[in-house]
Amino acid sequence: MIERVLIVGTGLIGASIGLALRAAGFAGRIDGWDQSALELSAAQEMGALDNAIENQLEALQLARDAQVIVLAVPVLAIKEWMQQLAPAMSPGQLITDVGSTKLEITELAGKLYGGEGQATFLPGHPMAGKESGGALLAEGTLFNGAMWLFTPVTAAPTDLEKEWRGWVGFFGTKMLDMDAARHDEMCAWVSHLPQMLSTALSALLEEKFGDAPEIAAIGGRALRETTRLGASPYSMWRDVALTNTDPIADTLLALEQRLTHVRENLRTPGLREEFSLANKFRSRR
Amino acid sequence: MIERVLIVGTGLIGASIGLALRAAGFAGRIDGWDQSALELSAAQEMGALDNAIENQLEALQLARDAQVIVLAVPVLAIKEWMQQLAPAMSPGQLITDVGSTKLEITELAGKLYGGEGQATFLPGHPMAGKESGGALLAEGTLFNGAMWLFTPVTAAPTDLEKEWRGWVGFFGTKMLDMDAARHDEMCAWVSHLPQMLSTALSALLEEKFGDAPEIAAIGGRALRETTRLGASPYSMWRDVALTNTDPIADTLLALEQRLTHVRENLRTPGLREEFSLANKFRSRR
Repeated sequence: MIERVLIVGTGLIGASIGLALRAAGFAGRIDGWDQSALELSAAQEMGALDNAIENQLEALQLARDAQVIVLAVPVLAIKEWMQQLAPAMSPGQLITDVGSTKLEITELAGKLYGGEGQATFLPGHPMAGKESGGALLAEGTLFNGAMWLFTPVTAAPTDLEKEWRGWVGFFGTKMLDMDAARHDEMCAWVSHLPQMLSTALSALLEEKFGDAPEIAAIGGRALRETTRLGASPYSMWRDVALTNTDPIADTLLALEQRLTHVRENLRTPGLREEFSLANKFRSRR
Repeated sequence: MIERVLIVGTGLIGASIGLALRAAGFAGRIDGWDQSALELSAAQEMGALDNAIENQLEALQLARDAQVIVLAVPVLAIKEWMQQLAPAMSPGQLITDVGSTKLEITELAGKLYGGEGQATFLPGHPMAGKESGGALLAEGTLFNGAMWLFTPVTAAPTDLEKEWRGWVGFFGTKMLDMDAARHDEMCAWVSHLPQMLSTALSALLEEKFGDAPEIAAIGGRALRETTRLGASPYSMWRDVALTNTDPIADTLLALEQRLTHVRENLRTPGLREEFSLANKFRSRR
């Protein structure tokens, strides 16, 4: 029975989890910690936390008393917390995370958790977010209708894991279990590539046009949508690029080659074929 | 004083112009012609036209009686109509178009129109549309808040041209005059490149994943937005690719190189710089 939850990292996702737990009727205690005092106090003021932990040492102490610990920090920080927490955790505890890439986390979880006398680790990834982060943008409905992916380390879920999945279900999310390597490959295509593409296009336009008024005058929905993710900060993507480098590089190379193909076929029937394939893709969406 | 308007091509844009004229209080007669009987009757049933012209010959006849003729067909068809209409038109008439590329049309207009004893031609481009065409999607409010670009051939506008610009203003559009070559270059960046990019990405995903259920399960707003334009039909883009080939190819090559740069810098400070430039671009939007 989950009575205490500790949220490590109270930015957009962490604070939204706190709010979503409350909205779903979770009556237990929610502790939270963030290395940014601003994020932490914002999350508390929004009602995402009962208690804002003052320092990292205290967070490690309180982790012993929580049934569920949610790691809602960037991927490399998640891996550090996994290392730090492992020796102090016991079998009655569940650690889960919300990291955007899952292979490195899932492999580490297999080493540090789930064994005799160890706590359980459930790697997770809610497919929800905004182009900017921060507790101030958090919402209890952020996960409503979204997909929450899991890349389990262990074959059979513990009762505690089942209970946590139940709460996630109450957030209004759909859930899907998948292989961690497959997760990272698929996310490279549907999430990381669109991000890198939008960043590259925005950066290119910035260098080419700067603040030329014509861009603002002429650019419509097409420009707005294809550059929207250009607003995402590097801090949200650095660890994704570092922990999913090869799959992302594969998708970028494939797109580069595809754009070359389009460029070389602007005046040939090859362009018609390209539109036809694209239409087919979209018609299923 | 504009009392009769002829709309050649009653698809999304042509029919929307008819509806917008009516919504703005235009009390004159609106004739319309389209080579598709379905588009034509749909436009008439929606109230975009008073009269659906039965064949192209009759359209050429009725063109003599209209003060304003709007060519709302693809760019190459616009050029054909310009050729066909020119000998039959007289100085008291204004021909205008809504083609997506303007250099070839503006150059042709300089040869066929605006001289002694000739009608006036005003090249135009409303920056409004949808990812699919057709009269059934037409709306009288389509141009509200949009930008309508003109690439004038003549230095001083005629009274008729001023009156037509007045109606366009009543549609709720902003208007901007610019050089035709500059128009095509800018539109390559803000409209044609996003389209080719979205088509290429959608086609790539179609070949790679087809109808794999995971794509639907995992893909979120990022995928939806960056592939939305993939639904656009080739028929709407063929003439753009044929009449603006070099500017589009330039933008594609630049983006290919930019993606290569991102790919080669996924683990270096170069990625931070790329995000920083992109953030700067978006912060002004």
